Amino acid sequence: MLKKRQGFFIVLEGPDRTGKSTQSRLLADFLKKRGQQVVHTREPGGTAFAEAIRRVLLDPRHDVHPVAEILLYEASRAQHTHEKIIPALKAGKTVLCERYTLSTTAYQGYGRGLDLKMVAVLNKIATSGLRPDFTVVMDMPDSFFVSRGRKLKSDRLERASALFRARVRRAYRKLAAEMPRTALIRADRPPEQVQAHMRLKIARALGLKP
Amino acid sequence: MLKKRQGFFIVLEGPDRTGKSTQSRLLADFLKKRGQQVVHTREPGGTAFAEAIRRVLLDPRHDVHPVAEILLYEASRAQHTHEKIIPALKAGKTVLCERYTLSTTAYQGYGRGLDLKMVAVLNKIATSGLRPDFTVVMDMPDSFFVSRGRKLKSDRLERASALFRARVRRAYRKLAAEMPRTALIRADRPPEQVQAHMRLKIARALGLKP
Repeated sequence: MLKKRQGFFIVLEGPDRTGKSTQSRLLADFLKKRGQQVVHTREPGGTAFAEAIRRVLLDPRHDVHPVAEILLYEASRAQHTHEKIIPALKAGKTVLCERYTLSTTAYQGYGRGLDLKMVAVLNKIATSGLRPDFTVVMDMPDSFFVSRGRKLKSDRLERASALFRARVRRAYRKLAAEMPRTALIRADRPPEQVQAHMRLKIARALGLKP
Repeated sequence: MLKKRQGFFIVLEGPDRTGKSTQSRLLADFLKKRGQQVVHTREPGGTAFAEAIRRVLLDPRHDVHPVAEILLYEASRAQHTHEKIIPALKAGKTVLCERYTLSTTAYQGYGRGLDLKMVAVLNKIATSGLRPDFTVVMDMPDSFFVSRGRKLKSDRLERASALFRARVRRAYRKLAAEMPRTALIRADRPPEQVQAHMRLKIARALGLKP
C-alpha cells in the first residue's frame, strides 16, 4: 500500500520553540511556488479525534503513566497518518508535517527514558511503516530557548525541566547525525537565513530549483 | 517489579451481555466471605484519564482508524494497570477485573482482523507483561445473546454485525481452549448456576473452600 504513493513526505522536527511553525509556513510557500501541491499539517493533525486526545494529554489534572502517554501519542499519530497523510501522498501531494515519529523517540525515549526498542515498535505500528522522505531537525542552544520561552504560556510538557530539555536536544542532534535523508539546521539565526538553508536542502532532495 | 506481587489477579472475559458484571459482583462477595481483600474493577478502570479516553472511543461521531482504536484501548489499559491493578496486587489484594488483554485479542485481532502479532505486542507493552493468574471466559449462543441485546441501548461496538459477534465468540472459545489457567463457562443458564460453577473453578485455583 505504502509503496504505491507518489507524493513526497517532509517532516520538520526539533524541540519546542525552535521556529518549526514559522519555518514550515515559509517552506510551504516556497514549495507551492515551485509547483507542488502542498498539504501542511502538524501532529496530532487537527482531526476531531486527534484534538480530543490532545486535550486528554495536555490536561494537567491527569497523572498520566508514561506508557499510557506514549500510547496516546501513537494513537493520535495513527489517526493522522491514515486519515490525512497517506491519502495525500497517494494523491501525489507533498506533505509537510510538523513533528512525527522522531519527536516520540526524542521526548518519550531519550527524554523520559522509555525503552527505545518499545518506542521504535510503537512508531512503526502507528505509521504502518511510513517514513519521511526528508527530515529537517531544528537545533538551538538552550540559553536562547529559555529567553524565548519566558514569554509563552506553559502546558505539561513545557513545564518540564531544563535537564529534560537538554536530553531531548542531545537526542535530536544524535538522531539527526545517524539518520539518512536528514538535515540538522541551526535555528538561532534570523528566520530568513534559517529558511534559505532549509530551502537549499529540500530543493536538492526533491530535485527542485532552489 | 511484577514478580514481587503477592495478590491474585482474576479476569472475567467474554462477549457483551454474557453477564460479566453480575457474575463478578457475586464472585467478589464470595471472595470477601473467604477472607480475601478484593478490588473489583473493569476496563478501562474508572480513572478520570481512562474515562476521558472511553468517551473518545465510544463517540459515534469519530471515524476511528482500527490502529488508532487499538492504541487507545491499550492506553486505557496501561493507565488502569499501572494506577490501580499493580498497586493492589503489590498490597496483597485479590483483583477481579472485567475484561483485559483477551478482549483486545478477540475483538480487535479476530473480530476486526488486525494482525495478531501486533495485538500481542501491544498487549504486552500496555500491561508491562502482567498476566492474569486465572481467567473465566463466559460463553453464550448468539440466539440467546440477541434476545437479551434487543432491550439495551447501543454504542459503536454494540452496533457491530452478527458476523462480527460470531467471530468474536469463536475467538474466545478457541483462546479459552488454548490458554492455561482458564475456564470456559456456559452463561445461558440461571445466574446462580453460572456462579456456582465459577466459584468451584476459582476456589480450586486459589486454594479456597468452595
